[in-house]
Amino acid sequence: MKILRNFERIIFMSNSTLFQVGTMQLLANSLLDGTMSIGDLLKHGDFGIGTGQGLDGELIILDGKAYHTLVSGECETPDASFTTPFAAAHHGDFKDFGQAENDSLEEVLNNAVAALRAQNQFVALLVEGEFETMTTRSAAGSQKPYPSLTEAAEKQQVFNGTKVKGRLLSYYAPAIYQGVTVAGFHSHFLADDHNLSGHVLTGKVLNATVKVQLLDTIEQVLPVDNADFKAADLTDLTMVHKAIEAAE
Amino acid sequence: MKILRNFERIIFMSNSTLFQVGTMQLLANSLLDGTMSIGDLLKHGDFGIGTGQGLDGELIILDGKAYHTLVSGECETPDASFTTPFAAAHHGDFKDFGQAENDSLEEVLNNAVAALRAQNQFVALLVEGEFETMTTRSAAGSQKPYPSLTEAAEKQQVFNGTKVKGRLLSYYAPAIYQGVTVAGFHSHFLADDHNLSGHVLTGKVLNATVKVQLLDTIEQVLPVDNADFKAADLTDLTMVHKAIEAAE
Repeated sequence: MKILRNFERIIFMSNSTLFQVGTMQLLANSLLDGTMSIGDLLKHGDFGIGTGQGLDGELIILDGKAYHTLVSGECETPDASFTTPFAAAHHGDFKDFGQAENDSLEEVLNNAVAALRAQNQFVALLVEGEFETMTTRSAAGSQKPYPSLTEAAEKQQVFNGTKVKGRLLSYYAPAIYQGVTVAGFHSHFLADDHNLSGHVLTGKVLNATVKVQLLDTIEQVLPVDNADFKAADLTDLTMVHKAIEAAE
Repeated sequence: MKILRNFERIIFMSNSTLFQVGTMQLLANSLLDGTMSIGDLLKHGDFGIGTGQGLDGELIILDGKAYHTLVSGECETPDASFTTPFAAAHHGDFKDFGQAENDSLEEVLNNAVAALRAQNQFVALLVEGEFETMTTRSAAGSQKPYPSLTEAAEKQQVFNGTKVKGRLLSYYAPAIYQGVTVAGFHSHFLADDHNLSGHVLTGKVLNATVKVQLLDTIEQVLPVDNADFKAADLTDLTMVHKAIEAAE
């Protein structure tokens, strides 16, 4: 990846807030009720990622518009009644960071956070261009009683693309936030033609611009009005960490 | 504890935001630079707790006024230059919850959160009245290179009081937030005559009112402009959990 020569100015730029509804722990504990509508989520940002009630597919928000990847792989615009148990969003103010060519996605994301010395804070990354390969998955929606993440993973669909043009939005979170959110990178993708999208498993960049936005604040809303959430025993942290590692 | 008969209305009351600067992980990793002034902290709430740069004592904010307990046990008003590496604050809107008589503090706090079915969310609790016993500690401030929490604990002072009138402010955090903040209860105390104060280790209530405030949102600012924070390796979570358990 070619990093812009003056990229270090980004480090000293004003910081922004990452908004999050729910925790990753909720998904690991099968607490999958949608507790915020897509409309309310959009008030907190014009970029974001998430999933639907019952792990109904994958969500990506780009430039203020939400896209919902069904388990079939089809991508549609969620209607107003669409709710999410777990999503992140922020007001986009991305800065040009570099140009990636023939780099693995993992390398691109890791190198960006390392160069920014941002491993201990939240970061939003936008990779836009052509991808040599892109592998995504979409979760299968479910009704109550909701399945475990492991059971849900058995019903997910995986999609592969080559030479795909599109946009990838990734949020990076520090290690201590595992369970509160997804530690490390959590990336969703949308092809320009909408024929490939979803939660990113792996990929390789052919030629893409890399934009970044440093976030210094996390604002997290818990679904305190949800009866299942209030009643749940959420003290088994070992299970949460294992479930997240297996699912992500 | 006598719980008010209509306490359940509290559960359905509007929720509020807990503001936090830094993480408990920072203290466990000896990242003790003060990164927010007391003046800025007060913009985020009129109730709060924290510590000073280098673990310089204990901080409590009540009704918009900050009090700083020195390691000597003396309590003074921190001046504008006082900064904190780790503090929590919120805009107080407490609701009457009950009356505690001859109950251990642990029992009072646990019972309140259990009755409110609030074990999975953040809660602020205010216990005001007379305490049969109250044991606090105050940390000893240090200069760079900062000590570990274990080394710091060796220099802390412990204070005991009996039949003390005062106010105790406690924040409850769900288990998954261990390291991000202090999971469980984190309580500071201020005697009405200021002769006893600090981080609460244990206590027994003689007769006190218990007020509570449910918090549905946590807003946490990380010290992203701090060079030591940026450079630190904060991936050893086992150490963090052990250090917090030993220190709290």
